[in-house]
Amino acid sequence: MGVVVQNIERAEMAVIDGLAACGVATVHEAQGRTGLLASYMRPIYRGARIAGSALTISAPPGDNWMVHVAIEQLKAGDILLLAPTSPCEDGYFGDLLATSAQARGCRGLVIDAGVRDVRDLTEMRFPVWSKAIFAQGTVKNTLGSVNVPVVCAGAAVNPGDVIVADDDGVVCVPREKAAEVLKAAQAREANEGDKRARLAAGEISLDVFSLRDRLHEAGLRYV
Amino acid sequence: MGVVVQNIERAEMAVIDGLAACGVATVHEAQGRTGLLASYMRPIYRGARIAGSALTISAPPGDNWMVHVAIEQLKAGDILLLAPTSPCEDGYFGDLLATSAQARGCRGLVIDAGVRDVRDLTEMRFPVWSKAIFAQGTVKNTLGSVNVPVVCAGAAVNPGDVIVADDDGVVCVPREKAAEVLKAAQAREANEGDKRARLAAGEISLDVFSLRDRLHEAGLRYV
Amino acid sequence: MGVVVQNIERAEMAVIDGLAACGVATVHEAQGRTGLLASYMRPIYRGARIAGSALTISAPPGDNWMVHVAIEQLKAGDILLLAPTSPCEDGYFGDLLATSAQARGCRGLVIDAGVRDVRDLTEMRFPVWSKAIFAQGTVKNTLGSVNVPVVCAGAAVNPGDVIVADDDGVVCVPREKAAEVLKAAQAREANEGDKRARLAAGEISLDVFSLRDRLHEAGLRYV
Amino acid sequence: MGVVVQNIERAEMAVIDGLAACGVATVHEAQGRTGLLASYMRPIYRGARIAGSALTISAPPGDNWMVHVAIEQLKAGDILLLAPTSPCEDGYFGDLLATSAQARGCRGLVIDAGVRDVRDLTEMRFPVWSKAIFAQGTVKNTLGSVNVPVVCAGAAVNPGDVIVADDDGVVCVPREKAAEVLKAAQAREANEGDKRARLAAGEISLDVFSLRDRLHEAGLRYV
Amino acid sequence: MGVVVQNIERAEMAVIDGLAACGVATVHEAQGRTGLLASYMRPIYRGARIAGSALTISAPPGDNWMVHVAIEQLKAGDILLLAPTSPCEDGYFGDLLATSAQARGCRGLVIDAGVRDVRDLTEMRFPVWSKAIFAQGTVKNTLGSVNVPVVCAGAAVNPGDVIVADDDGVVCVPREKAAEVLKAAQAREANEGDKRARLAAGEISLDVFSLRDRLHEAGLRYV
Amino acid sequence: MGVVVQNIERAEMAVIDGLAACGVATVHEAQGRTGLLASYMRPIYRGARIAGSALTISAPPGDNWMVHVAIEQLKAGDILLLAPTSPCEDGYFGDLLATSAQARGCRGLVIDAGVRDVRDLTEMRFPVWSKAIFAQGTVKNTLGSVNVPVVCAGAAVNPGDVIVADDDGVVCVPREKAAEVLKAAQAREANEGDKRARLAAGEISLDVFSLRDRLHEAGLRYV
Repeated sequence: MGVVVQNIERAEMAVIDGLAACGVATVHEAQGRTGLLASYMRPIYRGARIAGSALTISAPPGDNWMVHVAIEQLKAGDILLLAPTSPCEDGYFGDLLATSAQARGCRGLVIDAGVRDVRDLTEMRFPVWSKAIFAQGTVKNTLGSVNVPVVCAGAAVNPGDVIVADDDGVVCVPREKAAEVLKAAQAREANEGDKRARLAAGEISLDVFSLRDRLHEAGLRYV
Repeated sequence: MGVVVQNIERAEMAVIDGLAACGVATVHEAQGRTGLLASYMRPIYRGARIAGSALTISAPPGDNWMVHVAIEQLKAGDILLLAPTSPCEDGYFGDLLATSAQARGCRGLVIDAGVRDVRDLTEMRFPVWSKAIFAQGTVKNTLGSVNVPVVCAGAAVNPGDVIVADDDGVVCVPREKAAEVLKAAQAREANEGDKRARLAAGEISLDVFSLRDRLHEAGLRYV
Repeated sequence: MGVVVQNIERAEMAVIDGLAACGVATVHEAQGRTGLLASYMRPIYRGARIAGSALTISAPPGDNWMVHVAIEQLKAGDILLLAPTSPCEDGYFGDLLATSAQARGCRGLVIDAGVRDVRDLTEMRFPVWSKAIFAQGTVKNTLGSVNVPVVCAGAAVNPGDVIVADDDGVVCVPREKAAEVLKAAQAREANEGDKRARLAAGEISLDVFSLRDRLHEAGLRYV
Repeated sequence: MGVVVQNIERAEMAVIDGLAACGVATVHEAQGRTGLLASYMRPIYRGARIAGSALTISAPPGDNWMVHVAIEQLKAGDILLLAPTSPCEDGYFGDLLATSAQARGCRGLVIDAGVRDVRDLTEMRFPVWSKAIFAQGTVKNTLGSVNVPVVCAGAAVNPGDVIVADDDGVVCVPREKAAEVLKAAQAREANEGDKRARLAAGEISLDVFSLRDRLHEAGLRYV
Repeated sequence: MGVVVQNIERAEMAVIDGLAACGVATVHEAQGRTGLLASYMRPIYRGARIAGSALTISAPPGDNWMVHVAIEQLKAGDILLLAPTSPCEDGYFGDLLATSAQARGCRGLVIDAGVRDVRDLTEMRFPVWSKAIFAQGTVKNTLGSVNVPVVCAGAAVNPGDVIVADDDGVVCVPREKAAEVLKAAQAREANEGDKRARLAAGEISLDVFSLRDRLHEAGLRYV
Repeated sequence: MGVVVQNIERAEMAVIDGLAACGVATVHEAQGRTGLLASYMRPIYRGARIAGSALTISAPPGDNWMVHVAIEQLKAGDILLLAPTSPCEDGYFGDLLATSAQARGCRGLVIDAGVRDVRDLTEMRFPVWSKAIFAQGTVKNTLGSVNVPVVCAGAAVNPGDVIVADDDGVVCVPREKAAEVLKAAQAREANEGDKRARLAAGEISLDVFSLRDRLHEAGLRYV
């Protein structure tokens, strides 16, 4: 506790932006269905789709001192990602901190705890994925750490990993695999276009995805 | 497990559409406050109000093979209704399946589990009521059944029952009672118009609904 | 049980309206981080920000008889606040009751239980903060009380206390402290304007809020 | 609502007692992994293993009037099974009702709500599986029904179905399948004895259950 | 925040001990079904039945500094009752604090948060009712208050109120009503003995409690 | 997916057994309050206190195929630790698997899902910490992996890490820090003995832990 790692590696911005364009569900599939945060992480407003480098914060329950410390470490394109050291729903973050983060190029916040001033944040278009919306305030009395490995909403996140977030939730892509995952995600997308057209035309997915033989083999009975 | 019932009876379309027009709260009252799914079943977007015949899916946790099977059985006006065989939040359904279902006349999905690609589903206006929004993918390895009786979010549903869903939640009307419930629901609505006008004019509901005598009898004290 | 207190004291309307303008997070801070209702109390639609005098209802589970009784006691500027005597998600309140309450000057409903007809309530702009949206109906068989002290979603509320509610949740301000809390809240707001401008200009909050010395003292290490 | 069905069919006592001896996990497997109540249904004390005929109660939230009505309908070997019409944790049942039920040959209670006086019930060895232990009392003001089909903790139960309950939870066996399920359960048990001995001797379950070939086929890699 | 009230009034010990003998369910009934803490408050071991004067602690999340402060204020016969200022499951209390509290005559702990070292506490027979068992430690950095009014697990508690706790949960009796509630509770108990005997002899509760007429009136149908 | 790592490093047995003797709360403190699994992980019976090397299993929801694979990899002194790839409460493990695991020297199971046959497991003294007790069975159709890094109940666990579990919950100690953490834990224990004696003798913890000065400095007021 009480450590701020100042220099972390980040993925290339082109890769990060490519992952944002693919979206959470596709990226999650493309990396073998790993890295997803828990389903309770919900966006404070609909329609945002972002990706960025994780600037991680490990914070004590009900204490947002480290958020202030973390904002100083932000680089343009980063996403703040906060994991409390024990379960907490307090509102660690509001419009003042968002103003500061946005001024420094931060793309959003992922927080396994609460957020407040959500009307202001929505108007500012500062996207947040959180466990709760809660006006409960925090103190500034106990140290945590910045840019250390954390577990956030059930997913292991290292500083500099790529975080992708949209209406479906949040996924973490390990930094060193980001380029490869992007490639796989884009391949999935290319492949889906043709299938979507066939399905829209009324073809049955059992045919489009060639599922009939295995169903028969598994013993499905039509009565 | 492993059965697809191909021919099920459905209610008349006029009855189904009539029930949609009444909405969930009224229909639920009209059938004696039964058949409601649990309150955790929430729409992915607000404003949809639909009814349709239940095409039921009993699926293993984390396995959406049977959804593909079910879509082939869809008739125009149906609603897909999925109950997992044990509690699950995985995203069984996304934009490809929605494209296929919509192409075949499906009016929506009710799923006691998760859904993904909700931004696309919202743009397509394919309504879904679900327990979770979750990008977590599924496999296609284990059989379930289609058009068998299920318990979905706490309500017993038989194939062909009428499902009504709106912003208040989801209710199941047994197929053989649908016409009678519609009648009762429409009677309730007719009755409410007059009362709403009196209340809007400032009359007290204790008078409008004649509640004063029983309150007195029960011993209510004004101090 | 079974008591209706008819005359309660209320805060001055100017104070109430001033608190609404400050919003929940600011008011909660201004009164020493007390009085907040639990984070599960969510608005049925976004964007409402209200304050009013609490007209409290203690009701049995699944029984809304007392809501009818309470509406007769409403004065313009009041907020209905319902706490069930045991945990309950039933829909105690719908469009008919909202029509009546709105006609009598009620500003909204805070209910540690369920609400229904939310599409209608949204169209009427009758704001509700609730634990659930649930079409499940209620009966009128068992007495409760009106304008007695209650605990609602974890907060103690006395009749006539000022309730402030917005997208961040709901906070209760004791009536006798309302004027003083308003003053503190307005002072906070005045103070924040300048800080927001400095943060928007890129200054670091560690400087704006003078946090560096205590961090150093606490032993934070930069590596 | 408001109906008491007095004559229901029950399974043969020998079948019921046979199912009790097999236990919940085995019976659940033997009937194709169906009929299980939700995992939140927990016994108030450990070690009881019972089976009996379901005497079903559909009760309003917070109202135990129908429990009194149901007890009059008990036959020796029955199990009381209560499903509230909306989610509720109130203590519907305590030591007085247990005294009465036990005097009439009732084997236990399964309740998707709360129970109280658990110290007394434990001393009496009157087993209960419930969603909650909660001292919250109930009223006797609103009718429900006895011996109607219900959904209890996610499982559909008809009056006279066989309920099996032990430390693993609660399962419902449809009355008309009870004899057949017992046979299948006993066959499973016979089969397990030999396997248990081989596993206890250190043999690997991959061999005992012949799982290696399919693993290889599915592509499992050892590194 | 940051206040310790040193002199509080307490109920008479004879009244307190009388309430313990009646138990939670009876006391709760005797005071009109009020004052019960939420059902998630569970004992760390079964069989304890205690009552004592509430020594209240309002503590920040994850910070047990005030517990140390509170223990100095203990008088023999007191119960420590802790409410965090926002929801928290951390283990505020373990065997060292229990040793100290027990040495000073404390009868137990009621905590709307977590506790740890439960094996030791069980061996010491120091009873605890808590929301969680959790080894997560706490800090000593932020002030709270001792002997101020709190809301604990949904119940309003004033310092010096009588807390009664057993296997059924926890109930709070306002100090000034304690003697009167005891009287009502003892009357209930006296009344129950005769009824229990009649029920044990096989009489139907519908007769013992004279419930048949109202059932008939309410329209119950036997079929 | 679909990988079994056969050779993993483990900590020394003396270190592992030393950590077991210290218990979860002490070990968790000794490693800086990290590595704790969520509070919902509860033992199926009280009184077990174990430590062992983590043999990790990443398994699909509702599929226990990999548990069979993992058991073959067990060495004496290991603990099976299972994390499902999406949230699941199914009973992956029962008495047959426990018989096999115990025969191979396994000390227990930590599973972020369900377990069944708990009566048998209790009699066998095979300890399990789980999220649920649930008779729901699993299939053997989809691959997972063995001995890969997992996140289990909110904690990151690598194969070979030391798992300590007792009535307070479960903590993970990274293998390479195990010896050092043991030393710190034993130092804590040595230190506590003296303090416990002073507290038992009635000394105030504010003195025993020298907390008075900082309280004064922080502004605590006694009134």
